[in-house]
Amino acid sequence: MHAPPTIPAPGRPAASIDTPALVIDLDAMERNIARMAAFASAHGVAWRPHAKLHKCAQLAQRLVAAGAVGCCVQKTGEAEALAAAGMRDIYLSNQLVAPAKLARLVALAVRLQAEGGRLALAADSAHGIEQLAAAIAALPPARRPREALPVFVEINIGQDRCGAAPGAEALALAQQIGRHPALSFAGLHAYHGGAQHIRAYTERAQAMQEAYQQVVLTRTLLQAAGIAVPCITGAGTGTLVSEAASGLYTELQPGSFLFMDADYARNEWPVGAPAFEHALFVHTQVISRHAERAVCDAGHKSHAIDSGLPTVWNFGAPPALAFGNGGDEHGILTLAAGASAHPGTGGGLPALGETLWLVPGHCDPTVNLHDVMIGVRGGLREGVVEEVLRVDARGALG
Amino acid sequence: MHAPPTIPAPGRPAASIDTPALVIDLDAMERNIARMAAFASAHGVAWRPHAKLHKCAQLAQRLVAAGAVGCCVQKTGEAEALAAAGMRDIYLSNQLVAPAKLARLVALAVRLQAEGGRLALAADSAHGIEQLAAAIAALPPARRPREALPVFVEINIGQDRCGAAPGAEALALAQQIGRHPALSFAGLHAYHGGAQHIRAYTERAQAMQEAYQQVVLTRTLLQAAGIAVPCITGAGTGTLVSEAASGLYTELQPGSFLFMDADYARNEWPVGAPAFEHALFVHTQVISRHAERAVCDAGHKSHAIDSGLPTVWNFGAPPALAFGNGGDEHGILTLAAGASAHPGTGGGLPALGETLWLVPGHCDPTVNLHDVMIGVRGGLREGVVEEVLRVDARGALG
Repeated sequence: MHAPPTIPAPGRPAASIDTPALVIDLDAMERNIARMAAFASAHGVAWRPHAKLHKCAQLAQRLVAAGAVGCCVQKTGEAEALAAAGMRDIYLSNQLVAPAKLARLVALAVRLQAEGGRLALAADSAHGIEQLAAAIAALPPARRPREALPVFVEINIGQDRCGAAPGAEALALAQQIGRHPALSFAGLHAYHGGAQHIRAYTERAQAMQEAYQQVVLTRTLLQAAGIAVPCITGAGTGTLVSEAASGLYTELQPGSFLFMDADYARNEWPVGAPAFEHALFVHTQVISRHAERAVCDAGHKSHAIDSGLPTVWNFGAPPALAFGNGGDEHGILTLAAGASAHPGTGGGLPALGETLWLVPGHCDPTVNLHDVMIGVRGGLREGVVEEVLRVDARGALG
Repeated sequence: MHAPPTIPAPGRPAASIDTPALVIDLDAMERNIARMAAFASAHGVAWRPHAKLHKCAQLAQRLVAAGAVGCCVQKTGEAEALAAAGMRDIYLSNQLVAPAKLARLVALAVRLQAEGGRLALAADSAHGIEQLAAAIAALPPARRPREALPVFVEINIGQDRCGAAPGAEALALAQQIGRHPALSFAGLHAYHGGAQHIRAYTERAQAMQEAYQQVVLTRTLLQAAGIAVPCITGAGTGTLVSEAASGLYTELQPGSFLFMDADYARNEWPVGAPAFEHALFVHTQVISRHAERAVCDAGHKSHAIDSGLPTVWNFGAPPALAFGNGGDEHGILTLAAGASAHPGTGGGLPALGETLWLVPGHCDPTVNLHDVMIGVRGGLREGVVEEVLRVDARGALG
């Protein structure tokens, strides 16, 4: 494998970090964690932050230390990587039907249960439930999970991606789970991915109101059939104020609040929303400089662009530089409309060799491009390197 | 780190490969290599395929075995990873000004020269050249490169990204290189990234004609100043027919011809262009199935979307399924306009658990998401796993 990037030792200036590199402003991240913990506490809901964002066992454990009940993951390999590094309460909030993956997860559930932990899974089809039950039944009795494996029924509340139809279809799945002694019905998974980035808060909240009708309908039907619904889990950073106030959700799953990307920053936020701040940055250097543009060394291989290009961080002020698409390895920087200079440049565009900080458009797939995140204490300008956090589940796709 | 995906042993059916996974159709790839070798030979030009595509030392060496003179790379870490795995002739076709990176590259150049190989670099600024010369001068004489380090002057021929202005600015840089005994002027780097995806071939060729005027102007100026231009290097998969016919270029740098992504397939091709075919695929499984959609387990973390979403491979026929954006971990498949069924489904949408093959929109950043590429022999439908190729420089960003 390639040599790791030159990572400065603890105590070295943040500005000396080799480029491109993923850098966490630890102070900002810890303020975000405290805001989330206080928010969940004030609303009396549990929080189980989604580790698909950071894929880092150390961060998952710090969130638990701050009050989170565990973590969500999206992939078999993520569950394995985080469990190997000490996470004990994991919910895999995605659909799985491949026998090879289910066998790995059942083995993981056995290990976690033996350590006093728990692995929960999601299902949205009869086939998926039967495959899971078969993966357990295929094991000799001594190697099966000691406790029934908790399974959430995912319902489609508006995104039209995964999820059973609310109502009768969801009820049938919960009943099917109940017929397998090796499985237990854990509750409803009701996440609306399509609502998270609706810009206007009133429209976002309206989409959630329509979604809640489906949740209520399904819960009522289940209860009428004598099935208790111990947990309703869902919510993302864009809608958590709504789910928390709904009185329906017992557990919130947001992940992005930890780092806050440029795309979430474009959302309109309601009164009472925690004031999450940007905590994840790509450090980049100007490697080519021309009269009307500066070219930096960060492109699509350093940051994901599915939710737009990164912005050039101006320490809270409106950006003085516009980031243009320069392909896989470059960004093309020009002066933003109305700006005359980026700070620290001595006027105009940044100079050859100068380094800058980018705010990724979308943090989750950006983190997945990097092997490590470098934690900085004391701010990006004056701060120093404190630690290096490994992206344990980077590339855990399956 | 996370457990590697379950990789089937050689001889197992291609269809049994765990999902999502990156898979090479080895027969198609080898036909692409043979086409490129024949094309370069017919035009009497050298070829130095760009390894930023595959980041794989084994593939770089197979290309050399097929006639390539070496490889290009874009990053310090790529040069190091490919050299560590046996590549001996490497050109880093990008701008670098960071002293730490230049020190690493000078050390690498020393190692390659000792083994009879060569590392060449690019420059587009006086500052960059001085930084490189300083990195060499900082070493004790015994640890400096034995031979002068070849440096190409990159000129901007239309993309407006990196590159000195053609003409006087490029001449000044070549003269500056000539004044440093530790450096040697290797020629001109003239690549037009902005022209590769102009759809209509006549417009693409027209953009290149304008670019060639800048190359000729610069070469003439250099020669008039008594500076020989031993090499003009450039070209991508989209324009190589034009560069090869230009009589100007002595070396072609295309990378994508090896795998041919969905975006290049949308280009219009001239008579005489090699008929490159798709050779890289993402294997994916349907994990959630509904009346009007099937949801598969490949999203932005499995394939790059900077050049559009992937297409669903229909083995050469028009796609029967449309791939819709399902976020980081999902794709949403619906029947394509006019299609009634995807082959092998028994009618309609693919079933839960069925696997499919996606053609990435852009191969370079897609490969960078994966640790390995699984080579299949005998086609995707009937073929078997032959080998596993490591993406040696995955994540080599700096």
